[in-house]
Amino acid sequence: MSQQHTTTPDALIPALKLIVGEANLLLSGVHDDALTPYLEESRQRVNSVCQCIVFPSTTAEVAQIVATCRHHKTPIVPIGGNSGRCLGAHSDDPATVMLSLKKLNRVREIDIANRTITVEAGCILQTIQETAEKHGLFFPLSLGAEGSCQIGGNLATNAGGINVLRYGNTRDLTLGVEAVIPNGTVFNGLSALRKDNTGYDLKNLLIGSEGTLGIITAATFTLSPPERNNEHGFIAVNTIEDAITCLHQTNQVFTGKVSCFEIIPNLAMQWLEKHSDLRCPIGNNHPWYIWYKIASANPDDSLAEDNLACLEALMEDGIVIDATVSQNEAMKTLFWQIRETLVEVQKFEGASVKFDVSVPISSVAKLINTGYTVVNDLCPDIRPYPFGHLGDGNIHFNLSRPETMSDETFVNHYKATLVEALHDLVDGLDGSFSAEHGIGSQKIADMAKYKDPIALDMMRRIKHAFDPLNLMNPGKVIPPLK
Amino acid sequence: MSQQHTTTPDALIPALKLIVGEANLLLSGVHDDALTPYLEESRQRVNSVCQCIVFPSTTAEVAQIVATCRHHKTPIVPIGGNSGRCLGAHSDDPATVMLSLKKLNRVREIDIANRTITVEAGCILQTIQETAEKHGLFFPLSLGAEGSCQIGGNLATNAGGINVLRYGNTRDLTLGVEAVIPNGTVFNGLSALRKDNTGYDLKNLLIGSEGTLGIITAATFTLSPPERNNEHGFIAVNTIEDAITCLHQTNQVFTGKVSCFEIIPNLAMQWLEKHSDLRCPIGNNHPWYIWYKIASANPDDSLAEDNLACLEALMEDGIVIDATVSQNEAMKTLFWQIRETLVEVQKFEGASVKFDVSVPISSVAKLINTGYTVVNDLCPDIRPYPFGHLGDGNIHFNLSRPETMSDETFVNHYKATLVEALHDLVDGLDGSFSAEHGIGSQKIADMAKYKDPIALDMMRRIKHAFDPLNLMNPGKVIPPLK
Repeated sequence: MSQQHTTTPDALIPALKLIVGEANLLLSGVHDDALTPYLEESRQRVNSVCQCIVFPSTTAEVAQIVATCRHHKTPIVPIGGNSGRCLGAHSDDPATVMLSLKKLNRVREIDIANRTITVEAGCILQTIQETAEKHGLFFPLSLGAEGSCQIGGNLATNAGGINVLRYGNTRDLTLGVEAVIPNGTVFNGLSALRKDNTGYDLKNLLIGSEGTLGIITAATFTLSPPERNNEHGFIAVNTIEDAITCLHQTNQVFTGKVSCFEIIPNLAMQWLEKHSDLRCPIGNNHPWYIWYKIASANPDDSLAEDNLACLEALMEDGIVIDATVSQNEAMKTLFWQIRETLVEVQKFEGASVKFDVSVPISSVAKLINTGYTVVNDLCPDIRPYPFGHLGDGNIHFNLSRPETMSDETFVNHYKATLVEALHDLVDGLDGSFSAEHGIGSQKIADMAKYKDPIALDMMRRIKHAFDPLNLMNPGKVIPPLK
Repeated sequence: MSQQHTTTPDALIPALKLIVGEANLLLSGVHDDALTPYLEESRQRVNSVCQCIVFPSTTAEVAQIVATCRHHKTPIVPIGGNSGRCLGAHSDDPATVMLSLKKLNRVREIDIANRTITVEAGCILQTIQETAEKHGLFFPLSLGAEGSCQIGGNLATNAGGINVLRYGNTRDLTLGVEAVIPNGTVFNGLSALRKDNTGYDLKNLLIGSEGTLGIITAATFTLSPPERNNEHGFIAVNTIEDAITCLHQTNQVFTGKVSCFEIIPNLAMQWLEKHSDLRCPIGNNHPWYIWYKIASANPDDSLAEDNLACLEALMEDGIVIDATVSQNEAMKTLFWQIRETLVEVQKFEGASVKFDVSVPISSVAKLINTGYTVVNDLCPDIRPYPFGHLGDGNIHFNLSRPETMSDETFVNHYKATLVEALHDLVDGLDGSFSAEHGIGSQKIADMAKYKDPIALDMMRRIKHAFDPLNLMNPGKVIPPLK
């Protein structure tokens, strides 16, 4: 910046008010009631502190805020829909300026012939899904928080969700991004191209960087033909190995049409029936359940018939032991509700440790089978609850405390050991300790322990090259040098 | 490096011989006959100079070479199969050490259950395709040079090819990379995971960086079920707009199954019939031809029948004016040969200017229609020859000189103006002047002219953070600061 550093810290807030207007700035100690919902972490483990939250409504305002904070050497923490799982939008520094993207929420353009949509970072995911649908197209990113999460947060964390098997992660759906980089300038990378080899891949560098290299303000996504014709299966198998046979067989029969393929353990079915009104649509005593969806844009595709034939063959081979298919919309809704609700009912069984790990598909059986032994050895009668995205190797290997143990004992005496043991197992299987949730400040210690030191060194070089003052979402993603 | 800089420049060659062995180093002025084929550019426009070429056969050797060259402040240019189109593996500095990856060419692992393959950078693309096929799987990267290009070069340039529409570019097929970075250490990013959100996307930063941030030594790719069941169409349309209608309709009917969708101008068909033994399988006087392929892993999919029905509807609507489908393997081979040979026959019509541009699908018609007018205004009777990957917006908008103009006049008096005019047009349509070939040293001026200055600044920061001495493939990708 060309102007001299003659301003005092007290000049920051007036400067920010000049940018966004008085009504778009909430000040700590003054507007605390209004501030509170933004500072509370959704799982209520820890609340943020800051000196203010600003609500810019244009990219130019975001750029001015970033430049102003840099001038004042003030840290910035961008915040989205507050549904992150790793404290990626958390601030523990009372000097922080938090920057909400919620008012930067326009759909800028939808290009039917190019099958693309350009949206601003504060758009709610569900709004984008609905806008695409209204235009006869489909935005496949889908996850539990879709009604409240903002696309900027999905981009910052490269969110996954249930359709990754077919459509990829957020990164794979993104053709271009616009971002304010730490020096307060705007990177205009809003490409709508499917092929562009002009230099380094800055788009993918910004996606998944959790706001530490800049603030993504808008993105252009590719859209798909709508899944007008879709069929579901809800099946039971005896082993993880059999589940993977089903995955490969389904992928073979329905090339490019398997949208999701989710595994559910028996315990989840028990707890669903105990704690909710939902009922298992097939026998409730099978070891493992799978919910999958196949879909096509072509209404003439014989999905229902082919689905039955595929299942019949798997049952004849003894791979599938029980099964039902979607006979109507109510059945499809039931399958989806089971998958969504199984996440919620776990809390009724007391304290738990949650995981977001992935391994190669060829190692999922080993992960789960060995994982059961490992955690039971450390904590007898522990109740493992592994579920999730079998199709892409991403298992949420959650663990509920033993029935008779107190929450406090479990959390204080077992949690750390269990996390370490399971992450060690994952690491030994060349897996990831954070498949789709990111790092935030919560998994910094895991980054230091498991990530290739050369990779960490490369990340630190990039971070320093972009943000030498370490003002952009400090303390996230990259562990400090020892 | 810990050792002191006591070595003289004369010590470099002996140090390199110690690493790779005497037999794996070719010295300029000593082994010139053996060196020549590596220095000649495949289109013979310009030859490289260097002090030697080394042929390491392990990643450890590559790392030692890079560390040694850094110690001697000597530039390194990595070379692959010499089929690049933008002088990305060119050296004009006689002090350069060129590093061939050809002996680093093992298939390290194939994991059937995970559907992944790990190969070293020197593997020929076709070898990887064949290895996958032998194991009942499919590696979809496919391009003209596949019999000679090395996968390291495909990774360095994020190569495209004919199957991008369905499977994406090289980047989209890559799960992990191993690379030697400029400080001579090895980045071990050989992940076989489909979901991993642990920090910045170093993989995609290295892919497409054309050896300027490090040398990719190996990669893990995702494989697909084989395209056992496939059908082709060869059709004629009157306009680009109609061609795009066909694209959308085909994508709708065959969700996720359209592997390629290529456009061919009438002129190409004329020149094919004039300069080769190939004959157009339908009437040869139509304005535009399209070759497309639909494929499935499921032998029971009724592709042939559905293809006919789809075409029938398009003909009834007057969109498709002539058509044939693949009735046997010979027909499929013919379609493929037409697409491959049309690139070669252009040379029989004299000098040409070649392009590798892309625009949003919604702007392809404008690109081609306006493009014809623009180039004809600049050079009356010029013969435009636009063909290529309509499905992803990447058109090779080649231009042959007017019939009666000399090659020399065309190249000396028109080429630069034509390139600028067409790249300006592409830029105005938010397109890319290099869709799949990369930048190398050939398109450096275009980078300076068309690329967002903020993006260039970000690239320079990254380059400097990784390679402060600018020794890794210098002069490529990033234009010098004015």
